Amino acid sequence: MLLLADRCDRQLAARLEDELDQVGRRFADELASDLPCVNVLIEHIERYRGKMLRPTLALVSGMAASAEQGGAMPPSSLALRVIATVVEMIHMATLVHDDVLDEAETRRRGDTVNRLKGNETAVMLGDYLISHAYHLCSSLEMPAVSRLISASTNVVCEGELLQLANRGNRDLEEGVYFDIIRRKTAVLCATSCQAAAVLQGAGPTIVAALDTYGEKLGIAYQIVDDLLDLMGEEGTVGKSLGRDLTQGEMTLPLIHFRQHALPAQQQRMEAVLGEDVRCRLNSSTGPEAMLAVRDLIGETESLDYARYWAKSLVEEAGSALMVLPDSPARQFLLDTADAVLTRPC
Amino acid sequence: MLLLADRCDRQLAARLEDELDQVGRRFADELASDLPCVNVLIEHIERYRGKMLRPTLALVSGMAASAEQGGAMPPSSLALRVIATVVEMIHMATLVHDDVLDEAETRRRGDTVNRLKGNETAVMLGDYLISHAYHLCSSLEMPAVSRLISASTNVVCEGELLQLANRGNRDLEEGVYFDIIRRKTAVLCATSCQAAAVLQGAGPTIVAALDTYGEKLGIAYQIVDDLLDLMGEEGTVGKSLGRDLTQGEMTLPLIHFRQHALPAQQQRMEAVLGEDVRCRLNSSTGPEAMLAVRDLIGETESLDYARYWAKSLVEEAGSALMVLPDSPARQFLLDTADAVLTRPC
Repeated sequence: MLLLADRCDRQLAARLEDELDQVGRRFADELASDLPCVNVLIEHIERYRGKMLRPTLALVSGMAASAEQGGAMPPSSLALRVIATVVEMIHMATLVHDDVLDEAETRRRGDTVNRLKGNETAVMLGDYLISHAYHLCSSLEMPAVSRLISASTNVVCEGELLQLANRGNRDLEEGVYFDIIRRKTAVLCATSCQAAAVLQGAGPTIVAALDTYGEKLGIAYQIVDDLLDLMGEEGTVGKSLGRDLTQGEMTLPLIHFRQHALPAQQQRMEAVLGEDVRCRLNSSTGPEAMLAVRDLIGETESLDYARYWAKSLVEEAGSALMVLPDSPARQFLLDTADAVLTRPC
Repeated sequence: MLLLADRCDRQLAARLEDELDQVGRRFADELASDLPCVNVLIEHIERYRGKMLRPTLALVSGMAASAEQGGAMPPSSLALRVIATVVEMIHMATLVHDDVLDEAETRRRGDTVNRLKGNETAVMLGDYLISHAYHLCSSLEMPAVSRLISASTNVVCEGELLQLANRGNRDLEEGVYFDIIRRKTAVLCATSCQAAAVLQGAGPTIVAALDTYGEKLGIAYQIVDDLLDLMGEEGTVGKSLGRDLTQGEMTLPLIHFRQHALPAQQQRMEAVLGEDVRCRLNSSTGPEAMLAVRDLIGETESLDYARYWAKSLVEEAGSALMVLPDSPARQFLLDTADAVLTRPC
């Protein structure tokens, strides 16, 4: 389950594994319905569960924030577990709805809900997940945390809508790209860390530090995700690839290419992609076009540019944590940020 | 805005109109984004706003519950308005997602979001509305109310998933039909009434009475909605009709027909609908098939049966209110239930 189970403190790893198991059980218990047709769907999407990055961020941030208080306050495990479950449910909802948006067929080496049961069921299943996330969150009886979580999902939806509004916009500015990924991906990571710190009663400096850490890590994560979508191998990554280009969504290497590649390279790219990149890549020549795009990008510094951005953001994420006292939990968060750069999927 | 502005107490009507105006403004204010591409969508769906049934139920239930306490406690207008806005946002989200589910093209005489901007944007806009509803709800700092609202949306999603699982099931049992419409429609009406009573600090008898009233009214409302979808005129109703049949969803008159019509009538219906009702009704002969279905249903008592159910439920809704003291607000709720039976759209 963990990004770095082999490298981190053994006691922490054991506790985290136990906590994540409990999160998994709570996830399933909360979503169980009296309707068999609903339970079949829940069982299906449980296969989507992957690295559990967001619950991990919440749990370990809670531990790190608690360490900051010299252990004076015992970590409120139950509430932390609730928040970890809530952010996983929200993330799962975004995956299910994203698959509808992307017309994706594969997710974690299995069929997507939309492929299996149709878009309609995928839309409603996503709604069911969102609703249960808020329902569970309100059981904490901490309106400030509910407000934090829902403010975060407001921004996630804005990010998705901004991305949709820019589909097919080949002149997407770098600033808008960063705004999209900050909203659609990074904010939920930031909130996972921040809400956990709030739950532990951490002071404003620590809350802000964990918020910054989560946001920087989240942006880096999405840049790497976009790199994998462009350059990865489907067999390794385990989900449909080339989706960004197929949907006409510009990512960092392509934005850089468009701004910095030589005129001859730009022309060759235009020739490969044609007028509407989506039509071209959905056609029978799609896989060849994808390879040609990769070759062209590979000739330039655009991939390195994106990797450099990811690396810088991971460093900034780590720096933000320096206001926290040294602890195995803080070290785990630092290692997690590093692992974003080398993740295979 | 009101179902029965001409019949109800003038003072109450004036107050309600003012309250609904404020709900409308709060709705727009809460959804305003720093992203122009989001605001364009919000402006579009504000045209969807119709009768505002659910906010009306919440506001007037709050008044009726407050009257029960002999006016000892002033109605907490701000909190009531928040709940009224929240239930309208949730309802709007279900409309936007329903239109994706139904592939609908028209809503309140305008284009649906999915027709105008694609399914993807409609999915995300619905999510944005849901998220903002919970965000606003948590501003009340009353976790019990947040829990009530999110428990309600859990059930709404179950109802939609149960309906989807039964698409094309021509042997749908009456009990399952009632379970679907109770969940997908009635529960949010019930919660609108119930949450308002809870906010006013009403006792358990009054809370339960308003809950029952809302649920019975909601079931009746959906039966009438289904009757309009089958028998109404598009020009009067203002949205795409015949959607239930086109999507292979059985409603009360058709379930009754299938169980009680003469064998010859059943055979004629089979001949009209063919093996897959959806394909048949989506074909060029769709409008003719729809007329033939109407004629056939009209020969039987199936429409009267559905109308009888709606009427009985409205009576039960009214009976539930008898534990509340007489007040203009209670009278308004009784009249609103009656109006469900005669609504043109």
